[in-house]
Amino acid sequence: MEKMSKRRIKLVIHYDGTAYHGWQAQCDVDTVQSQIETAIEKLCGCEAKLIGSSRTDAGVHAMGQVAHVDVDTPVPTKNIIRSLNRYLPNDIVVAGAEDVDEIFDAIRSTTSKLYRYTIYTGKIRPVRKIRYCWHRPGKLNIPKMQQAAAKMLGKKNFKSFASAADQRESSVRTILKCDVIENKPFIHIDVEADGFLYNMVRNIVGTLVDIGRGRWQPESIDEILAAKDRAAAGPIAPASGLCLMEIDY
Amino acid sequence: MEKMSKRRIKLVIHYDGTAYHGWQAQCDVDTVQSQIETAIEKLCGCEAKLIGSSRTDAGVHAMGQVAHVDVDTPVPTKNIIRSLNRYLPNDIVVAGAEDVDEIFDAIRSTTSKLYRYTIYTGKIRPVRKIRYCWHRPGKLNIPKMQQAAAKMLGKKNFKSFASAADQRESSVRTILKCDVIENKPFIHIDVEADGFLYNMVRNIVGTLVDIGRGRWQPESIDEILAAKDRAAAGPIAPASGLCLMEIDY
Repeated sequence: MEKMSKRRIKLVIHYDGTAYHGWQAQCDVDTVQSQIETAIEKLCGCEAKLIGSSRTDAGVHAMGQVAHVDVDTPVPTKNIIRSLNRYLPNDIVVAGAEDVDEIFDAIRSTTSKLYRYTIYTGKIRPVRKIRYCWHRPGKLNIPKMQQAAAKMLGKKNFKSFASAADQRESSVRTILKCDVIENKPFIHIDVEADGFLYNMVRNIVGTLVDIGRGRWQPESIDEILAAKDRAAAGPIAPASGLCLMEIDY
Repeated sequence: MEKMSKRRIKLVIHYDGTAYHGWQAQCDVDTVQSQIETAIEKLCGCEAKLIGSSRTDAGVHAMGQVAHVDVDTPVPTKNIIRSLNRYLPNDIVVAGAEDVDEIFDAIRSTTSKLYRYTIYTGKIRPVRKIRYCWHRPGKLNIPKMQQAAAKMLGKKNFKSFASAADQRESSVRTILKCDVIENKPFIHIDVEADGFLYNMVRNIVGTLVDIGRGRWQPESIDEILAAKDRAAAGPIAPASGLCLMEIDY
């Protein structure tokens, strides 16, 4: 029997990250990647190695994660979606699948990514939203947060907003959008960039919240960026509020 | 030392019921009632017996459950809320508390209850809503469901919509509201009544959905009610879509 030529499939994936130790497969813990790889292996009867664009952390969600996988199956793409979703748990879904050229690489072909962070400012704990927000009761000065957010835009060295664990050579990234949107009792912070350092969005959000509560003035962002030191910025915001919304290619 | 006179406190409670075996305390399983009783006991240092207005089932949510409890503590009501919420898990919250007369009884003083059922009709599993809806892809005929819902209104014998486990003497209840509201891709079904039989809302929803998908005409509601037989109505809708919204006194 002739060996089938490999097919590369691009997947768009949504998940509620609460129950998982993040995206990336690790020994002995449950991750989103390993759940999907197991589903693909059941479907195709072969080993599957999924390459995800963003290694989201434990508790972080996605409504637009992208991954690619090479499979060895004649099953039509439409049926692949349906079958994978039957194998997957309720908190993970394959929202789209398409055959792509082998040139496509979920990590390297990325041009930009958009994250949304959600803060809930109401007093009473929002039990049906708590998995998807940072519950932080109390007032925040939105115009000051917006002024500070505007200072993040452009090509800059974001080392002060990267957790120490970040091993990448360059800390220079270009932030295309950093919007603070009030939608009472919610605040959304949308950050789009050509790439992100480890924990970058959560560190930006923690710093913007410190500005919103009056710890610093918006101008302090300039000094924080210039310091190139994680200790100069604010605390990290909780994982639950973060959602990967979109990846562009 | 003089014994303090008992205080009766009325609590308004919100919860995500996904993780619990319903409201009512039972041996060996985790319930919302037992979680709150444990929190009260920690706070007051005395045994607490919580009387909840609605014994919601496993997986059913509440944004307006009401309960009363007699406590023996001088702690001000405001502080009781704050302390209880510190002891409670993230998916349960005491949203309000007030001192009430001993005449108040969370069960007997009820005049009406409002439930909301949520259906999600989109094709892709909504991973961040799945705990709070019935994911039922595909079209439903909303006007026909609305015609059928209107036939539920008034004082009637709802035995056909009560699960067999219902042991109450009378199956007569008065439905004050039965609205089918389309908010694409969601459908909400709001049902308000002076009281509900066991699984009554979920059995009504299952029947309305059968009408929406064309199994029956709206007029069939008359025959179903007349049959006074659970087997005459449609299947029970999943617990996850149901939320107790409000209880009036």
